[in-house]
Amino acid sequence: MGKFEVNILGCGSALPTLRHYPSTQILNIRDNLFMIDCGEGAQIQFRRMRLKFTRLGHIFLSHLHGDHCFGLIGLISTFALMGRTGELVIHAHPLAEEVFRSQLNFFCRDLPFAVRFEPVLADRATVVYEDRSITVTSLPLKHRLPCTGFLFEEKPGMRHLLGDMVKFYDIPVYRRAEIKAGADYITPDGRTIPNAHLTLPADEPLRYAYCSDTAYNESLLPHIAGVDLLYHEATFGDDAEALAKATFHSTARQAAIIARKAGVKQLLLGHFSARYEDETPLLEQAIEEFPASILAKEGQKIVLGR
Amino acid sequence: MGKFEVNILGCGSALPTLRHYPSTQILNIRDNLFMIDCGEGAQIQFRRMRLKFTRLGHIFLSHLHGDHCFGLIGLISTFALMGRTGELVIHAHPLAEEVFRSQLNFFCRDLPFAVRFEPVLADRATVVYEDRSITVTSLPLKHRLPCTGFLFEEKPGMRHLLGDMVKFYDIPVYRRAEIKAGADYITPDGRTIPNAHLTLPADEPLRYAYCSDTAYNESLLPHIAGVDLLYHEATFGDDAEALAKATFHSTARQAAIIARKAGVKQLLLGHFSARYEDETPLLEQAIEEFPASILAKEGQKIVLGR
Repeated sequence: MGKFEVNILGCGSALPTLRHYPSTQILNIRDNLFMIDCGEGAQIQFRRMRLKFTRLGHIFLSHLHGDHCFGLIGLISTFALMGRTGELVIHAHPLAEEVFRSQLNFFCRDLPFAVRFEPVLADRATVVYEDRSITVTSLPLKHRLPCTGFLFEEKPGMRHLLGDMVKFYDIPVYRRAEIKAGADYITPDGRTIPNAHLTLPADEPLRYAYCSDTAYNESLLPHIAGVDLLYHEATFGDDAEALAKATFHSTARQAAIIARKAGVKQLLLGHFSARYEDETPLLEQAIEEFPASILAKEGQKIVLGR
Repeated sequence: MGKFEVNILGCGSALPTLRHYPSTQILNIRDNLFMIDCGEGAQIQFRRMRLKFTRLGHIFLSHLHGDHCFGLIGLISTFALMGRTGELVIHAHPLAEEVFRSQLNFFCRDLPFAVRFEPVLADRATVVYEDRSITVTSLPLKHRLPCTGFLFEEKPGMRHLLGDMVKFYDIPVYRRAEIKAGADYITPDGRTIPNAHLTLPADEPLRYAYCSDTAYNESLLPHIAGVDLLYHEATFGDDAEALAKATFHSTARQAAIIARKAGVKQLLLGHFSARYEDETPLLEQAIEEFPASILAKEGQKIVLGR
């Protein structure tokens, strides 16, 4: 299957620092870009990572706290100046349309492209986007206001035809698609060749889950079980567990416990509080619970792969 | 007199690039900070320049194009998180209050400090701010929507008492203030000592003019005559004079002609179009008209002085 990359544009939290931009990520899935959250400065980081503005069609906002969406108006304004024509779809809480539409009407009159808002409800997991290759499902999180994570999943692919068998049975081109989809092959003389002789299984679909901002939340587990990569907020360390609880955030350790219980392949920690000059202690605390933990960092590109 | 510094946080134009942030400056006048315009990322640049957030009380917006104000909501939001209590005053076009108040109501409920909007009309030069030490006057510019520059002027200071003369005439402490203000001294035996024998003239008040965005505009000349530093937009070079005209911007050469005709001491060029990888040609064109021209640059601090 194709490319599936997670680009970290920002992984700080409410208070931007010189170390971290606020929350923004861009997924590159087969050269289509999907943005998750859009903090102030997202457009600059977008450029800095040398991703193509024109490849972005959809932006998913987890919630309407400023550190997750203050970059949106600037990004849209820049798209307008660059002459974008393709529709831009914003998947966000229903209140987003009102607040951003009034900004757009004021600052970006005569946009040369359409901006469409698609409501994302935070009460249950729902498919919010789908195309030929992927499905995006919203994941209810526990935060101070309605907030959703997003699960990006590849659709199951085709089985792999074995070249040698194709040659051996001289399988005509027009029959190959159905065999890749799982059919057996009936030879011209009526013999049935079982699909398992002709193909190898399809690749496991890749799955990425973005969970920020949220308190410790086990109701996530069935949705994110076994994902290739889990981004989970880790605003605080053990030193500030009470603060995490009070503000509906997670500690790095809690993120790692969720990762372990969900049996994910790798955990990416982010949304770091400005109080930490260095997040190494957070990483160490996470690794105690779940060894395959890493820290997010601006400019980082993580390739999901088989 | 005290400190008078111009800090360049951003000197790009509508399209941010990796070279330039959008328009933002901070004046440090005797450790009070005054922000002029507030482009996206202003708060990050504010930190990067290690200026103190708490020293900022007033923000002056030239006009309501996004590259001059998209950083405002993020800055205010950060002030709130940091527990600011002092009032913040935004001097801007009357429409600013409506558009920013609705953002504040949505994103920054329960602000721990007051945000007050003071209308700036763009039809004539008006004093928009005044304190013990300075006066700020709006300057009508010629742009696609109402737009004002700002002239920051120190108030005339006191004359300098000559220590030797104070000693010679044994001038009592309680008489010195009026002598510094220009009075003669009457000795106990009735003689009049003219002020000019006792003092040196006050320092010339420092003056800084910010003119962005604007087409070539000679009506500025009387307002900015002889200023210590003129920041004038120079969006384009000679190569794009027609484009400058069409978009109500200036070329570097036009900025320099304004500087020469106004007899300013130094010209600072900024608001560079994203089309220039390197602004050296713009500087060269300006210098042909007015030698004391320099290019603005992020992180630059210019000390106005005697």
